[in-house]
Amino acid sequence: MTMLPTALDKLVTLLSRLPGIGERSATRLAFFIISEPRDYAQALATALTEVGDHVHLCADCHMIAETERCTICRDATRQRQTVCVVETVQDLLAFERTGAYRGLYHVLHGVLAPLKGVGPSQLKLDNLEARLMAEAVTEVIVATNTDVEGEATALYLAKRLGASCPGLALTRIATGVPMGGELEYIDQNTLSRALSGRQRLEG
Amino acid sequence: MTMLPTALDKLVTLLSRLPGIGERSATRLAFFIISEPRDYAQALATALTEVGDHVHLCADCHMIAETERCTICRDATRQRQTVCVVETVQDLLAFERTGAYRGLYHVLHGVLAPLKGVGPSQLKLDNLEARLMAEAVTEVIVATNTDVEGEATALYLAKRLGASCPGLALTRIATGVPMGGELEYIDQNTLSRALSGRQRLEG
Repeated sequence: MTMLPTALDKLVTLLSRLPGIGERSATRLAFFIISEPRDYAQALATALTEVGDHVHLCADCHMIAETERCTICRDATRQRQTVCVVETVQDLLAFERTGAYRGLYHVLHGVLAPLKGVGPSQLKLDNLEARLMAEAVTEVIVATNTDVEGEATALYLAKRLGASCPGLALTRIATGVPMGGELEYIDQNTLSRALSGRQRLEG
Repeated sequence: MTMLPTALDKLVTLLSRLPGIGERSATRLAFFIISEPRDYAQALATALTEVGDHVHLCADCHMIAETERCTICRDATRQRQTVCVVETVQDLLAFERTGAYRGLYHVLHGVLAPLKGVGPSQLKLDNLEARLMAEAVTEVIVATNTDVEGEATALYLAKRLGASCPGLALTRIATGVPMGGELEYIDQNTLSRALSGRQRLEG
């Protein structure tokens, strides 16, 4: 890319560090930024600086926050005896969109993946036990993904919290046929989970 | 997205204006930026400001440039009697990577697309004729894409330059079977073009 101005080259290199953006896409993005009116690049630069200055992770649950604690942890109307453990901020937002959960969260910012070198110390787990004691939490809902890594992380948490916090109720989100699912097209694994997790119908 | 800090919301909105980046990808990119060390957001902001300040389009060929004219137009070793017309800067860079072309370029920054409201006035065509005269150009190679819009643009240029610059040689890049192509899998249109454009084998 020696044909391009240094400033542009630098921008392409930085953009290609973004997840899912290769050098080719980064070049396309950079060209788009140049072709837009001047204000756009400036607005983007300002937004990046502001995010860097003002946005960090909540000291309690590791959700994104502008103050030391996030809006959920500071919300006095939330039920503080339940903590839902999720892998990512996106997962937390998905639960919030349902409106069905009024407890607190704990964002791991990852999942155990020994093959990728992600062990417990790479997850935001340091303060979990202290938090559970301090808030007098009675139930931890493990809401990691239902894939191999998410299941392994759920098992790890069950083992760890079972030992360190006796008396705590540990639950896992239900697995089964998704709403609107057609049984014919559901994979065997999900179907057998749906069978073994069957619930009594209220008559 | 009311759960997210305003600064982050603004960043997501700006990122989702990038081509191929929806709100969901923009959110993922923004979260990545937060999770990276502080320097990354700062470096990206600086690169954006610098690009905005120092990078613009060459006054002659509309290639990206840091000075009024780009490095190719200022290069005294280039053959100035040939101009290759391309749709995008990426196409120009693709030709440069071949090392097979030593003439000048003209970047249209688009292609005629009446259905999308792109007419000749939206392309960088204003200065083309003046340039051809000034540089005493003898051949214009039309290297727009070989899709419907690229072909239509080639026809438009042929008609326009044929009328305004009599005596100018107008050529189109060859269409045919790509190198390494297996004839069995080549589409009919390309195959018939390859047939009708057949060249005499030197014995």
